[in-house]
Amino acid sequence: METAVFNATLPSTSPFCSLSYSSSSVKRAIFPLRRSYGGKNGILQNSSIRGGSVGVSRMMTVSASVIPVVDSRTWKFGARVPTIVDVDLGDRSYPIYIGSGLLNESDLLQRHVDGNRVLVVTNTTVAPLYLEKVTEALTSGNSKIDVESVILPDGEKYKNMETLMKVFDKAIESRFDRRCTFVALGGGVIGDMCGFAASAFLRGVKFIQIPTTLMSQVDSSVGGKTGINHPLGKNLLGAFYQPQCVLVDTDTLNTLPDRELSSGISEVVKYGLIRDPEFFEWQEKNMQAMLSRDPSALAYAIKRSCENKAEVVSLDEKESGLRATLNLGHTFGHAIENGIGYGQWLHGEAVSAGMIMANDMAYRHGWIDDTIVKRSFDILKQANLPTSPPDVMTIEMFKATMAVDKKVADGLLRLILLKGSLGNCVFTGDYDRKILDETLNFFCER
Amino acid sequence: METAVFNATLPSTSPFCSLSYSSSSVKRAIFPLRRSYGGKNGILQNSSIRGGSVGVSRMMTVSASVIPVVDSRTWKFGARVPTIVDVDLGDRSYPIYIGSGLLNESDLLQRHVDGNRVLVVTNTTVAPLYLEKVTEALTSGNSKIDVESVILPDGEKYKNMETLMKVFDKAIESRFDRRCTFVALGGGVIGDMCGFAASAFLRGVKFIQIPTTLMSQVDSSVGGKTGINHPLGKNLLGAFYQPQCVLVDTDTLNTLPDRELSSGISEVVKYGLIRDPEFFEWQEKNMQAMLSRDPSALAYAIKRSCENKAEVVSLDEKESGLRATLNLGHTFGHAIENGIGYGQWLHGEAVSAGMIMANDMAYRHGWIDDTIVKRSFDILKQANLPTSPPDVMTIEMFKATMAVDKKVADGLLRLILLKGSLGNCVFTGDYDRKILDETLNFFCER
Repeated sequence: METAVFNATLPSTSPFCSLSYSSSSVKRAIFPLRRSYGGKNGILQNSSIRGGSVGVSRMMTVSASVIPVVDSRTWKFGARVPTIVDVDLGDRSYPIYIGSGLLNESDLLQRHVDGNRVLVVTNTTVAPLYLEKVTEALTSGNSKIDVESVILPDGEKYKNMETLMKVFDKAIESRFDRRCTFVALGGGVIGDMCGFAASAFLRGVKFIQIPTTLMSQVDSSVGGKTGINHPLGKNLLGAFYQPQCVLVDTDTLNTLPDRELSSGISEVVKYGLIRDPEFFEWQEKNMQAMLSRDPSALAYAIKRSCENKAEVVSLDEKESGLRATLNLGHTFGHAIENGIGYGQWLHGEAVSAGMIMANDMAYRHGWIDDTIVKRSFDILKQANLPTSPPDVMTIEMFKATMAVDKKVADGLLRLILLKGSLGNCVFTGDYDRKILDETLNFFCER
Repeated sequence: METAVFNATLPSTSPFCSLSYSSSSVKRAIFPLRRSYGGKNGILQNSSIRGGSVGVSRMMTVSASVIPVVDSRTWKFGARVPTIVDVDLGDRSYPIYIGSGLLNESDLLQRHVDGNRVLVVTNTTVAPLYLEKVTEALTSGNSKIDVESVILPDGEKYKNMETLMKVFDKAIESRFDRRCTFVALGGGVIGDMCGFAASAFLRGVKFIQIPTTLMSQVDSSVGGKTGINHPLGKNLLGAFYQPQCVLVDTDTLNTLPDRELSSGISEVVKYGLIRDPEFFEWQEKNMQAMLSRDPSALAYAIKRSCENKAEVVSLDEKESGLRATLNLGHTFGHAIENGIGYGQWLHGEAVSAGMIMANDMAYRHGWIDDTIVKRSFDILKQANLPTSPPDVMTIEMFKATMAVDKKVADGLLRLILLKGSLGNCVFTGDYDRKILDETLNFFCER
């Protein structure tokens, strides 16, 4: 429950050490997105975009500041009480159920099943743990439901077209028709592949997500991004496709390896950094509780993460601008994952190092002060996450992957960088290329 | 310009010969969709659904009758004057430009290009004819535009995942980003594959359709259905994805083989049968003009077909019910294409035989009178289209493919069948299975 001590082993040339750097050196004016509460679900209604309308201006900059979604003093709700976060997307809206033991609540699942036929898409790791339980939940008290399953090999390296075809083959061989439901049971890879399969099978069938990793619970299960990798890049093929519901049973985290837990925490930290300073402060106080898998702490972290993401996605489903801010550290992180090979580092590990790099860049621009740099570093370190890229990463490896990043528009790479006080960031192509080079030089040996 | 004479070579057991069958034998009451004009583009505003709400009832029946979209007396507009049909789908609306010489109007194309990079997807047959012209139209007076192209093998048998990957590979290797535009230059196969590729590349980029066959101009370019085949069935994988615009240059029909022209006419005939009796009458009078490629006649047939399809799609984009009526004859037709191997018969040829089979079924139910059976037979015959399935088709082959048809819901195959006076049809699972067997028995040797 305590804030970690500043790590003194950083290289002396690191800006992380320049703690005397004055906050008055934030040289550029900040034009935050001002939020006013109102309307359905208290979703923010007004936003101002600097530099042009969303998705139009080449040099568009989106900034966001935040009023906390929930008073952080109320976080100690019982983990056994299911909580619902609503993702508000008009006729594609859906609920996220969060709680302990939800896989025993068969009604929760069954109310979202379309038709009588269900295809559970899972992997070799998760199937032995939860496939029987999920099948039971889907069929309990309802003899009409026919459940098929397809068990894919586990791992990011199988997130490709070849594996996706196995899902299609199973559905087609089983003669599934349009009135059926796909269920994603597993982590982010399973969720992304099952969702993409559901979007494309017969041009779209219903699907439900049961994420079993913290990463997928707080990130990939919210917002409808689905897809697969291509040999030349991550998530290059896919669809925006929303599930009928997401069911997060926090009990599934009890079987999650420590490294995967930390990986998920990386995304939790991100929400605090980009838009929710109170949540970040809560994390600073409760990191140890999360790491020791305190169910209440985890349930709260998941809920608040989902609320943050749901708000952003509601405002910008197709990632015209605001939604891109959820990718703090991801451009550097994807370059790491791609450079060393998918699956070598977990996604959250790569994002952790990526956030440190992005913060370094922001600091060199004078956009954030040293306390934000230090607090980010400390919290990620405490979560046992990497704070620099692996040694094998070269400047060229970063640049090669960044050139095909999805956030490149008309040849210009746009980045998400913190700017201003904690909880503010920009999505912009208007940064200093020399400073990007400085950051890459600083973190890479060559 | 004359109505073809009734073909007396039909087998004597065919209901086509029972021309004395009284129209009073239409035994069941018809509950047509009543249309009232008004609102944007004069699209029909009200509809009544019999048997439950769209997409919900298992036994749902949708019926439609029609008031002609355009007074058929005005059809003799100049083919050189571009006509615009608007497909009204809210923020996914798009125009269809129809006219002679439109590929010389570079402005028409360029106004719909997103970003500076274009990928033209075409095939080995069309590329030598029109790729240079389209590239010229895309770049004329605009040096910023970079046009890449991918030339796929020609034919339905290449409409698969392997070929689709070539489009992705080209876009990724060329480092295309989200601000780019795919252009489909070719027939229905190219349109379907390019559209699906655009929907999935980086989770969706813009695309434009330049259909070069009558079939794709009157059918597959309207309504956003994209996809590929699976070894077990046609169009089983895909997306609903709308283009930025469709550009129909009727001059491209001058290079179209006769068989392909007739194939397109099959779908033109369909619009008349299911919802537009005046258009059907116009076709009866002008079949010879279409076959001799009179540009005015073809432009009018394309325009009116697009208007009919655009109306239906506007009302039911995701094919909950009404849109399915566009598939008259297609369930039988798909079974033929699948049974004898994709590409052996052209799509419109299979649909022609399928419509004859569907009309046989409707007639055996007593839902339509013999004049409709005869007029349908005559017009398809005059268009040089098949009026029965190929001899190799067995009852089992029909049944095997029909069991995995996309219109199966909860195990029940729903069919589109004409019912009532010309221009009325139903989409229903509430038909007599024995009569389906009778029809299959009638048309198949075994």
